Amino acid sequence: MPIDFKKELENAARSMILVHDPDVLIKTIIRALVDKAGIEHASVLLYDPKRQTYVLSLSGGSLENKVPIGFASLDKDDPLIRFFRERNNRILFKKDILTLDSAEKALKNQVLTSRAKSLLNDALYQARLLETVVCIPSYFREDLLCLFLLGKKTNGKAFLCAELDFFSALASNMAMAIRNAQLFKDLEIELNKKHQLFMRTTIALVAAIEAKDNYTHGHTTRVTNFSLQIAKRLKNKNKKMINEKFLESLHIASLLHDVGKIGIPENILNKRSALTVGERNRIKEHPLIGATILKPIKELEESIVGIKYHHERPDGSGYPEGLKGEEIPLIASIISVADSFDAMTTDRPYRPALYRDEAVKEIAKLSNLQFSPLVTEAFMELCLEGTL
Amino acid sequence: MPIDFKKELENAARSMILVHDPDVLIKTIIRALVDKAGIEHASVLLYDPKRQTYVLSLSGGSLENKVPIGFASLDKDDPLIRFFRERNNRILFKKDILTLDSAEKALKNQVLTSRAKSLLNDALYQARLLETVVCIPSYFREDLLCLFLLGKKTNGKAFLCAELDFFSALASNMAMAIRNAQLFKDLEIELNKKHQLFMRTTIALVAAIEAKDNYTHGHTTRVTNFSLQIAKRLKNKNKKMINEKFLESLHIASLLHDVGKIGIPENILNKRSALTVGERNRIKEHPLIGATILKPIKELEESIVGIKYHHERPDGSGYPEGLKGEEIPLIASIISVADSFDAMTTDRPYRPALYRDEAVKEIAKLSNLQFSPLVTEAFMELCLEGTL
Repeated sequence: MPIDFKKELENAARSMILVHDPDVLIKTIIRALVDKAGIEHASVLLYDPKRQTYVLSLSGGSLENKVPIGFASLDKDDPLIRFFRERNNRILFKKDILTLDSAEKALKNQVLTSRAKSLLNDALYQARLLETVVCIPSYFREDLLCLFLLGKKTNGKAFLCAELDFFSALASNMAMAIRNAQLFKDLEIELNKKHQLFMRTTIALVAAIEAKDNYTHGHTTRVTNFSLQIAKRLKNKNKKMINEKFLESLHIASLLHDVGKIGIPENILNKRSALTVGERNRIKEHPLIGATILKPIKELEESIVGIKYHHERPDGSGYPEGLKGEEIPLIASIISVADSFDAMTTDRPYRPALYRDEAVKEIAKLSNLQFSPLVTEAFMELCLEGTL
Repeated sequence: MPIDFKKELENAARSMILVHDPDVLIKTIIRALVDKAGIEHASVLLYDPKRQTYVLSLSGGSLENKVPIGFASLDKDDPLIRFFRERNNRILFKKDILTLDSAEKALKNQVLTSRAKSLLNDALYQARLLETVVCIPSYFREDLLCLFLLGKKTNGKAFLCAELDFFSALASNMAMAIRNAQLFKDLEIELNKKHQLFMRTTIALVAAIEAKDNYTHGHTTRVTNFSLQIAKRLKNKNKKMINEKFLESLHIASLLHDVGKIGIPENILNKRSALTVGERNRIKEHPLIGATILKPIKELEESIVGIKYHHERPDGSGYPEGLKGEEIPLIASIISVADSFDAMTTDRPYRPALYRDEAVKEIAKLSNLQFSPLVTEAFMELCLEGTL
């Protein structure tokens, strides 16, 4: 008995293990069923554990745009679902598959209780509304994970027994693939949550630390914003220079660039009168203190470089090491421009804020002396466009 | 032609999608091959992207304990691997499968260049050392992901053509399952890394904040340690009370319990003489300040409760809300005992440290007044055992 679509569907199914988005996976499966097996339409009712309902995904077949109202999802207690969730109903049909024919035979069967007949009747009513002639359930362990609903064959003929067997095996494989995709997605969501938790906690702690310094309210947020914009501009100009990993390191480094100020006494940070040389030297320790605080965290290696060197200057007059020109890492050069621009445009104890245009001019003038020419160029472009 | 093991192996393979540990997966696969298909031994050479080598996993079959030295892994340039990595060698054999027979025929074939013959000879030499009669490669995209090596059939007969076809299809499915497991494992590793990054960064920032307070060096680390030990003891006594999520929340809450001190001026924190009522009230704000700092972080909800209420007392004399008895959340009650015990046993500006035994007695005496009786009981048990 030739089932010519079998190989093709099996091959399609094989590669689906690596489709880790449940939605894409289901759409691909039902599309393949319709296209390869010559079925008018196919759909899947998939269990959503969060909403505790079975959500309908539909093929692009002939049923599209005419799904009955209320069928976007079915409740656990809807007859069609309940019929397949109750184990004793399943044993009536070969390999758990329910066809319209077998259902009608079963209804005439004396073995069925009147309660079971009534449930089957209600289930068939729902199946018919979805123009379904075959229902194939897939169980994960003992739970109904999904229910495949097939329409008629496009050639008008009845399904062969071997075809139904094959669909049943396929549905079981697909259930595994769907479950796999769900687990994958869950893990991705967890990873994303953990990332958010890390970023938000860091932001909260940095904001609390920043609050000790009366003159820097919102400074960290603005510097982080400026830094990321400059980096994205540099990426657009030369993709190779900047990748996702760099952007993440820069994000963290910008958030933490002044964390070392926690090691400077409050009375120096908030002093209104002129600082002594000794006090100024204390403040200049903050990049090194910041780097020291984070040193045990290997994953922050690149960020630490940004924190440690964000007060270096190309002419060698910066601190802590007096690095020159290209010796200064890009990540630090970006923070340097962002940091200085924000410092210039906000009030400080020893001077009022510069106007925005004055600050931009000042930075342009200091390119190659205090600031990296490459970073200054990107910064100027953003300013001229009004993006920054 | 009956291949009676086929169904069993197919069923085994199906459920393997959900085995997400690559090592377990491979061991299960080769075990199933040996047991179900009646092969003397089977093994897999699996590509390890980090080490850039092919690592051998062996069945428990007859080859065990006699793998030739140097075969625990094969280099990319080892002949057996190179033969399958070079695409032009593959086309000589049906479905990429190399059998000893087909190889010997190929060596007599005039089409092969002398270079190809030499490589095949070297590959066969390695295969024979592993007592392999059939090699089945699995490619992911164009890369050799793994190479299945089969020993002789236990009944001494030659492999049937249909059997080889089946193994080839199975190997391809298995390659997908292995790839899936690897991706899953990679994601789990990333999640774990992100968790470590979050914890380490929090610890580093908390240590930096703590350093502002001259009298609390190492306090946070000790309180965290005590809290977790008490919680684990409570879990042993009554599993329902404490789950993994609670332990994680407690861990974070313990680390951050004094984070609100960042909002208290340094001169109050480090004052050597007696505090005024006003100064004492400022210090009493730290649980609320801590909760406020972290409030935007929804994931930390349970931890925030621990931070906010860790100075409440069952007799209602605590702060910030004067909660009584059972009103005080367990997470806060645990930190309260851990925090007080550490404070009692370390020097403070206003008094020297108590001896350990004195502190334990003091806490026992204050059970139900200052400390939760439940937590005190667990704490006392740990102290008596010498665990704490």
